[in-house]
Amino acid sequence: MDATTIDLEQMGRAAKTAAMTLGQLTTLQKNTGLLAMAAALETHADTILAANKADLAAASALPEKFVDRLALTKARIADMAAGVRQVATLDDPTAQTDRAWVNEAGLTIAQKRVPLGVVGMIYEARPNVTVDAAALTFKSGNAVILRGGKEALHSNLALATVLQDALAAKELPRDAVQLITDPSRAVATQMMHLNGYIDVLIPRGGKGLIKAVVEQATVPVIETGAGNCHIYVDAHAQLQMAVAIVVNAKVQRPSVCNAAEKLLIHADVANEQLPVIAKALQDHGVELRGDERARAIVPSMHAATAEDWDTEYNDLIMAVKVVDSEEEAIQHINAHNTKHSEAIITDNYQNSQQFLQQVDAAVVYVNASTRFTDGYEFGFGAEIGISTQKLHARGPMGLAALTTIKYQVLGNGQIRKN
Amino acid sequence: MDATTIDLEQMGRAAKTAAMTLGQLTTLQKNTGLLAMAAALETHADTILAANKADLAAASALPEKFVDRLALTKARIADMAAGVRQVATLDDPTAQTDRAWVNEAGLTIAQKRVPLGVVGMIYEARPNVTVDAAALTFKSGNAVILRGGKEALHSNLALATVLQDALAAKELPRDAVQLITDPSRAVATQMMHLNGYIDVLIPRGGKGLIKAVVEQATVPVIETGAGNCHIYVDAHAQLQMAVAIVVNAKVQRPSVCNAAEKLLIHADVANEQLPVIAKALQDHGVELRGDERARAIVPSMHAATAEDWDTEYNDLIMAVKVVDSEEEAIQHINAHNTKHSEAIITDNYQNSQQFLQQVDAAVVYVNASTRFTDGYEFGFGAEIGISTQKLHARGPMGLAALTTIKYQVLGNGQIRKN
Repeated sequence: MDATTIDLEQMGRAAKTAAMTLGQLTTLQKNTGLLAMAAALETHADTILAANKADLAAASALPEKFVDRLALTKARIADMAAGVRQVATLDDPTAQTDRAWVNEAGLTIAQKRVPLGVVGMIYEARPNVTVDAAALTFKSGNAVILRGGKEALHSNLALATVLQDALAAKELPRDAVQLITDPSRAVATQMMHLNGYIDVLIPRGGKGLIKAVVEQATVPVIETGAGNCHIYVDAHAQLQMAVAIVVNAKVQRPSVCNAAEKLLIHADVANEQLPVIAKALQDHGVELRGDERARAIVPSMHAATAEDWDTEYNDLIMAVKVVDSEEEAIQHINAHNTKHSEAIITDNYQNSQQFLQQVDAAVVYVNASTRFTDGYEFGFGAEIGISTQKLHARGPMGLAALTTIKYQVLGNGQIRKN
Repeated sequence: MDATTIDLEQMGRAAKTAAMTLGQLTTLQKNTGLLAMAAALETHADTILAANKADLAAASALPEKFVDRLALTKARIADMAAGVRQVATLDDPTAQTDRAWVNEAGLTIAQKRVPLGVVGMIYEARPNVTVDAAALTFKSGNAVILRGGKEALHSNLALATVLQDALAAKELPRDAVQLITDPSRAVATQMMHLNGYIDVLIPRGGKGLIKAVVEQATVPVIETGAGNCHIYVDAHAQLQMAVAIVVNAKVQRPSVCNAAEKLLIHADVANEQLPVIAKALQDHGVELRGDERARAIVPSMHAATAEDWDTEYNDLIMAVKVVDSEEEAIQHINAHNTKHSEAIITDNYQNSQQFLQQVDAAVVYVNASTRFTDGYEFGFGAEIGISTQKLHARGPMGLAALTTIKYQVLGNGQIRKN
């Protein structure tokens, strides 16, 4: 598997050819393909597990958390298959016409949803992303080129082969799903410059990966995942609600991007509420890092540094700041957030409205946990990722984020007069 | 005006501050600003014309076509003012909520339209783009940083100052409209890398400009304007309709991106129809460049080279190819087009459907001129440009293309259980 065995342009051409076919399939044909993929995953579970064993053997020296993400079991494979069947039940976004109208010249203009074409995915250790991405891109009529982490290479290859064989058996294009089997950085870099073949590149993984892709890629990228999320406890917050939401947002799954990383609290309630909230967090093992005023109230906090305000911990750590006004909270958030998810806890109507309008983020909450920023929780039925950029898609991305529009215009000889 | 007088980061910060205010304005406040801008253009017409005279004096050695684009008159200024008043009459895209629903946890989720924030525009000689861009970005709640061509610097500076003064007089943010007064390439390059300040950069102008911006920029770009558009005359085309549409698409305004550059004609009708279509084009001064089969039918054509199929002439030149099937036409188009606008002339239903579905372009026409690809013709009331990319916006872009979404989520204490 050296670099010379991979011809990315050839893969790109094959993907474009497959995409042309996929774009013409009916929803029924696509669902048939998805159900075949799901069945094949279960039928070939032993082959997949054997490949996964090879990856796990090579990964034995890596951290337990990492190995856990990599490991497959019969139950996890069944979950993958169930996920694919779930995608088959979703509405086909390309079966939709957004709107149609007749213009002044008498042309009928229909704005149709169509697939983007070829989607590139660069991701890390979880082999389930391979199946997830294949199902979502297939349902939306796109071909996909996958480049997973080198630690999961055997697992990903086994999974991709099972999916390809399942498609081929239904006379659907095998190249709808292609895996890059060379895990070198050079090939990843080449993939980021595959203009003319890849219509959009979606990185999924840690900050380092996403930053590298955003900075280096010349193909269009959708930036996902960075979440330096804040909870602002307003002067009019209910204490019990504040405790419950802050603890949930910080503790329930600290490694994910919609977990809260910062707590801002209004000075008027800090003396009363901060000790209670802090204790609840500390009881859950959260390390707190406060500014001077927060530490004056809860001395057990470590001192926050300037760097803390811009850091996404993805861990049981939370920085805490006391603010004198909602304006100060909003300014701090807009200066330091990653435009992901922000929440205010308040019973004051005006303050809730001000926060909703002035905070610049994909998702802004009143009296709810930031953990709800998720395609499934939003009711999209699927999630390709969470966009933190403003162009094309923002927030949780469902199948529609993998589509674009095409105007189909019907005339009867119209020419333009001026 | 040397490079050291320009602090782009300072301009970026000022734009962000202005954008924060603009995002909170009511539609009425924005329309008041627009009407003030329109009135100020007319009131200060003499100042603007004097500045334009300075640009024209410096441009006297340039081609007449170029000078014509640069020149302002009282009538042209009145047109600009009318254009701004027209923008005031358009619907405010940020006054809109796309949809709202309640999720399983009982959260009310509203998908709101919000401004992108700060828009960058890089453009060439036409001073009217300064006014156009200022009006459209202002109406959609965005701040704009303008970088026009150096030949129009005095005119652009006069226009921008008039607009800024008009805003300030209404206590609206002057920095909603900023002009970069250093026309050096170095500053343009710096602008393309103003990440964190510019949310989207829209280049408007010739191919060279757009290519440079797409390749160099690290801020998000919307690619506009390249149009290698085809007309395919099918075996079932009405001759009179074919002649009218081909002539209109090629001749009516050959310099623009939605003008047709290529004619494909089915072999079954080429002997009968091509001589008539070719003569009509030649009577309008069009130079034809044919493949071998086309030249065998119309010997007065020049020989097309391989390069011709990928060239956007923006001139009275058209390349002609005879094809044996609709499939061949579609394949040729998908291999050589710029994904802008493509048309089929046919009376055959199946062929029309195949073309609409299989041609990959922003706009696909049956029996109409490609010249209709235009925000005004589509009924959008305005046009920022025509996107030839698939992400975010495709085809004619109205005000909505200058917006993104924000999810506002209303809860009453919801936390996530799993």
